Amino acid sequence: MTAVPVTIMITSPLEPEHARRIAAACPESTEVIYRPDLVPPSRYAGDHDGDPGWTRTPGQQDEWSGLLAHAHVLWDFPVRDDEDVEFSLIAPNARWVQTSTAGVGQIVKRLGLQGSDLVITTASGIHGQPLAEFVFGVLLGHVKRFGHLRTEQRSHHWERFSTGELAGQTMAIIGPGRIGREVARIAKAFRMNVWAMGRTNTPNRAKELGVDQLFGRDELRTMLARADCLVLCAPHTPETENLIGRGELLAMKSDAVLINIARGAMIDETALVDVLEQGHLAFAALDVFRHEPLPPDSPLWDLPNVLVSPHSASTADSENGKLTDLFIRNLEHFLNGRFHEMEPRLDTSRLY
Amino acid sequence: MTAVPVTIMITSPLEPEHARRIAAACPESTEVIYRPDLVPPSRYAGDHDGDPGWTRTPGQQDEWSGLLAHAHVLWDFPVRDDEDVEFSLIAPNARWVQTSTAGVGQIVKRLGLQGSDLVITTASGIHGQPLAEFVFGVLLGHVKRFGHLRTEQRSHHWERFSTGELAGQTMAIIGPGRIGREVARIAKAFRMNVWAMGRTNTPNRAKELGVDQLFGRDELRTMLARADCLVLCAPHTPETENLIGRGELLAMKSDAVLINIARGAMIDETALVDVLEQGHLAFAALDVFRHEPLPPDSPLWDLPNVLVSPHSASTADSENGKLTDLFIRNLEHFLNGRFHEMEPRLDTSRLY
Repeated sequence: MTAVPVTIMITSPLEPEHARRIAAACPESTEVIYRPDLVPPSRYAGDHDGDPGWTRTPGQQDEWSGLLAHAHVLWDFPVRDDEDVEFSLIAPNARWVQTSTAGVGQIVKRLGLQGSDLVITTASGIHGQPLAEFVFGVLLGHVKRFGHLRTEQRSHHWERFSTGELAGQTMAIIGPGRIGREVARIAKAFRMNVWAMGRTNTPNRAKELGVDQLFGRDELRTMLARADCLVLCAPHTPETENLIGRGELLAMKSDAVLINIARGAMIDETALVDVLEQGHLAFAALDVFRHEPLPPDSPLWDLPNVLVSPHSASTADSENGKLTDLFIRNLEHFLNGRFHEMEPRLDTSRLY
Repeated sequence: MTAVPVTIMITSPLEPEHARRIAAACPESTEVIYRPDLVPPSRYAGDHDGDPGWTRTPGQQDEWSGLLAHAHVLWDFPVRDDEDVEFSLIAPNARWVQTSTAGVGQIVKRLGLQGSDLVITTASGIHGQPLAEFVFGVLLGHVKRFGHLRTEQRSHHWERFSTGELAGQTMAIIGPGRIGREVARIAKAFRMNVWAMGRTNTPNRAKELGVDQLFGRDELRTMLARADCLVLCAPHTPETENLIGRGELLAMKSDAVLINIARGAMIDETALVDVLEQGHLAFAALDVFRHEPLPPDSPLWDLPNVLVSPHSASTADSENGKLTDLFIRNLEHFLNGRFHEMEPRLDTSRLY
């Protein structure tokens, strides 16, 4: 490895064992700044934001800013969702940021980094498995009528019944990226038909993605009209904002299921509430919302055909271990100047 | 096809469209007796028992017995679970019975058919997919903490949290037959480790079954002690009766999940209740019970860590369509004397 001194700074909550693993993977010339006392305390495994009520004292803030000014590598952007700062002013020496989330396009834009040559590697792929597990938990609970089972159980009532099944159903995926492909792979194991709408639609693309059929943006409603479930996995970009409006929702089958594990801004939430209240959609499982936390007076909380999940479907107890593995792989490439081998890279122009 | 006259009799509820398909598949010399007026009315799609309150009038019973006496092929055994009759007396001309369920060993024994040369093909395999979907619905709902989500949703409470995941967990399967292999196949898609205990344990057997490791009967507790979930799929035979006793339940991890989609008699139900009440097992999903219907005063109904399912996990709306396909395939073999090609065959000696 190179002997150029490099300073790595951990800027979000991380368990000591993972910080130790990172330090152990570094050459002597590399310094790891791990100061859990200067970041908000973690609330659960894989919490990258930490307690929102926690703030730094003025003294801590000075120390924090001083450390940040010298760091070359950051584990996470050192800002909160509601902070408005110019990244180049607070971290002028940063060359590479490894984020702990996948959908960082909007934060990169907000920090004034669109089009910059900062290396940004994301957690894209880390969340594929937990998100796919969420998707199939929702779909199976719905198709196998677990809600009905619980009602029957409460009244000690035994009555045999029949259910649908995932096998033979058609799943439509919007955004067949790493997460969408993981969902598609498991859907195929359940013997579902899998369709997808993505940005590219070349002849070999469906096979590459592991789906049965690809649809173009102009065929969205055609795809929706024939799908039994719709899974939103696309990044939040200008093209996906409000992609699912009232017309798209009404195009869907009335017994279809909608799952949003992408970003709340993809759906017209007002139209969604209307459509769900009218029973036009059978069920919606939402892990993301236009405004998070979902306001306590949102009608979504009380709809019987909605599962509200607090943006936690991707969060698994194993997450920071996997992120640490990823960081260490990327660090070795970074220290040896093999920037092109670092992955998964964010395209800072296209923001995904 | 052969010209020998053959009489087929449908002895359990079946939708007219399926009976029509069977008739259409028959040569002219074959007669199909389809008398929905002489069988109990169906209560749900795939109901093979029909309304237990329904009975034949004496006139209907005479007509039924007369028809049965001449039938060569039966769609289902023409007896109810609680009837005690000698099969050879009521259906002396029967050469082949296609059953609509998989686990028929006990009924075959009760009808005096153990060791007989009656051809018995079962529905084994038909239920693999619906049962596997039940298994993963249970496991995902548990690991992704859907119960916690519902509680949080009821109180409009947004708090991010972390969960476990199926990926990396170890599943133990007892009875890697058609159903167990389907469960194993999907478990591998979820990146689980899959172990199994079956009757044969030869070097290539694990690979044939699609599992990572096989355990012998004498290693049962060793396997249970290291598994995150146990799925019972074995047939009900003298070897599997009471296989999971108190000692086996106590050998399991306290955060493990137990799923029984086999037969209730495989588990010591009293010990199971104790173990669940003490929180030694995290969760049990039971589709089968020692006494069915599960008595209204069974403590299982009210345990918060139990899902009671009324022996319906295998019942899918598509079932009779699939059974009809299977029957038509077997019928062609039967009419052409290719008995060895009929499948899946019950071994009338071993009863599975």
